[in-house]
Amino acid sequence: MLRTPLIPDPHLSEALGAEVRLKCESLQRTGSFKARGACNFLARLTPEELERGVITYSSGNHAQAVALAAGLRGTSAVVVMPTTAPKVKVEGAERLGARVELAGTTSEHRRARAEETAASEGRVMVPPFDHRWIIAGAATVAHEVFEEWPEVETLVVPIGGGGLASGCAAALRRLKPESRVVGVEPYGAPTMRSALEAGRPLTLEVEGAPDTIADGLAPIRVGDLTHAHAEALLAGVELVGDDEIRRAALHLLERARLVVEFSGAATVAALLAGRVATPGRRTCAVLSGGNMDPVLLSELVGRRGWR
Amino acid sequence: MLRTPLIPDPHLSEALGAEVRLKCESLQRTGSFKARGACNFLARLTPEELERGVITYSSGNHAQAVALAAGLRGTSAVVVMPTTAPKVKVEGAERLGARVELAGTTSEHRRARAEETAASEGRVMVPPFDHRWIIAGAATVAHEVFEEWPEVETLVVPIGGGGLASGCAAALRRLKPESRVVGVEPYGAPTMRSALEAGRPLTLEVEGAPDTIADGLAPIRVGDLTHAHAEALLAGVELVGDDEIRRAALHLLERARLVVEFSGAATVAALLAGRVATPGRRTCAVLSGGNMDPVLLSELVGRRGWR
Repeated sequence: MLRTPLIPDPHLSEALGAEVRLKCESLQRTGSFKARGACNFLARLTPEELERGVITYSSGNHAQAVALAAGLRGTSAVVVMPTTAPKVKVEGAERLGARVELAGTTSEHRRARAEETAASEGRVMVPPFDHRWIIAGAATVAHEVFEEWPEVETLVVPIGGGGLASGCAAALRRLKPESRVVGVEPYGAPTMRSALEAGRPLTLEVEGAPDTIADGLAPIRVGDLTHAHAEALLAGVELVGDDEIRRAALHLLERARLVVEFSGAATVAALLAGRVATPGRRTCAVLSGGNMDPVLLSELVGRRGWR
Repeated sequence: MLRTPLIPDPHLSEALGAEVRLKCESLQRTGSFKARGACNFLARLTPEELERGVITYSSGNHAQAVALAAGLRGTSAVVVMPTTAPKVKVEGAERLGARVELAGTTSEHRRARAEETAASEGRVMVPPFDHRWIIAGAATVAHEVFEEWPEVETLVVPIGGGGLASGCAAALRRLKPESRVVGVEPYGAPTMRSALEAGRPLTLEVEGAPDTIADGLAPIRVGDLTHAHAEALLAGVELVGDDEIRRAALHLLERARLVVEFSGAATVAALLAGRVATPGRRTCAVLSGGNMDPVLLSELVGRRGWR
């Protein structure tokens, strides 16, 4: 695993009147923080379990992470991805040696298919987020931020299934109880926000796939464990729109010189939109992934003229 | 100054059968390594000199660096840039508080104008590369690489005026005498190569500006000091073409998730083209800057379809 860079964002800092740094998980192995959880999970399997091979379901980044982890541990991986998965993520998983199966458009569709295949092939399921080993792996993101910048006051993390937010909140609030950890979700998939309001995870009702460009933040249901972490540890969950996410991705390209996928830009979108109270605060935004589809990047750069 | 990240490039490593890491000066303050030399230079000026203000000439990155350094030291800066300077660099210098003057298309045109203005306004000249304080600042790039990765065997650096190559070679060869430092220039401005062949710096004969997309590598003459460093310390100078540079910039966008300007991608271009012998060697490529013009990036991404 790489200790990813934590770099200052002078433009965002000036705009917000705060000190803002970016934790660049987009530069992590396989291009997202997911490698941390997957490698931690596979490191804890027994030789007998490894021999059976592993399987997972994912919109793409966890798939690549499991493919990497399987290769490192010398076992085989099957990953079930949605039929709408970005080509860059499908190819990424294949390049790492995984067998890719495409199934449906929501996280529940692909989970069902993965459970079928796991049963028929005897493979060990690597859950995408709702497991303590996965959450513990993701927690190392906040651990690194704190080690390098113990003055950090607010940590902003994106929420898909909630694994990253759970791990980061558990780590940072333990290391520094007075810190705040704020989650960010797209308007099109406010699953943690709704779980916190309802007091339990709800399944998002959608026709086809959730309506957001942030494919990594689009699971239609958070986990029981991740919901419990969020309830106990998060300062709040803010929502962002697709255009705000696009603007943030452009900001990161132009000003921070980083290619960040839409899901990874959601935290910066919330900051740019003024949705996270930062004045005077030392704030770290986690850029969770960098697997931007080339076609989408081309559209983004071409359409908006960068300003 | 930032300690910039040194990140592995698994794709390039696999392609070359070597271990390749990227030193990301594209993520340095002002988006290039130039901030190191400029800040070192201004740190050594006397209060009287600072009161007079500073001036420099640059294709853009050194201009932004001097603007930053002047702001940090509380003095004013004038920067003379070519009429062909990328808008992103002109605006970057202005945003940092510098007064920008545009003059001619070659490094000699802008040097002449800067010397005139320096004389009439009494400003201190901050040379873009041929000065020991500038070279010493640039040397910190190699120093950081070695501190983090003492096993490094080959360091690949781009050459414009030669300051970065001189500093890096002086630092790394002292820290590790058996290491190799290789320079890279565009075919359109082979000024160090020609200086090494002739035994002295030659002025490149051009109509208008040198014929290369790597604007930061296009000074038409290297320095006396930088030539002397290159002669004593470099293992060689390799040349790359514009299409090779474009391909490298695409590789860095797609695979390494970094926005790198064409000048900054030249080292990776040389590696991808197999022009630097690397088999089995631990190789570090310096990505010297990330100030990619948005229009050029848009053209690059759109035209090539990324593959």
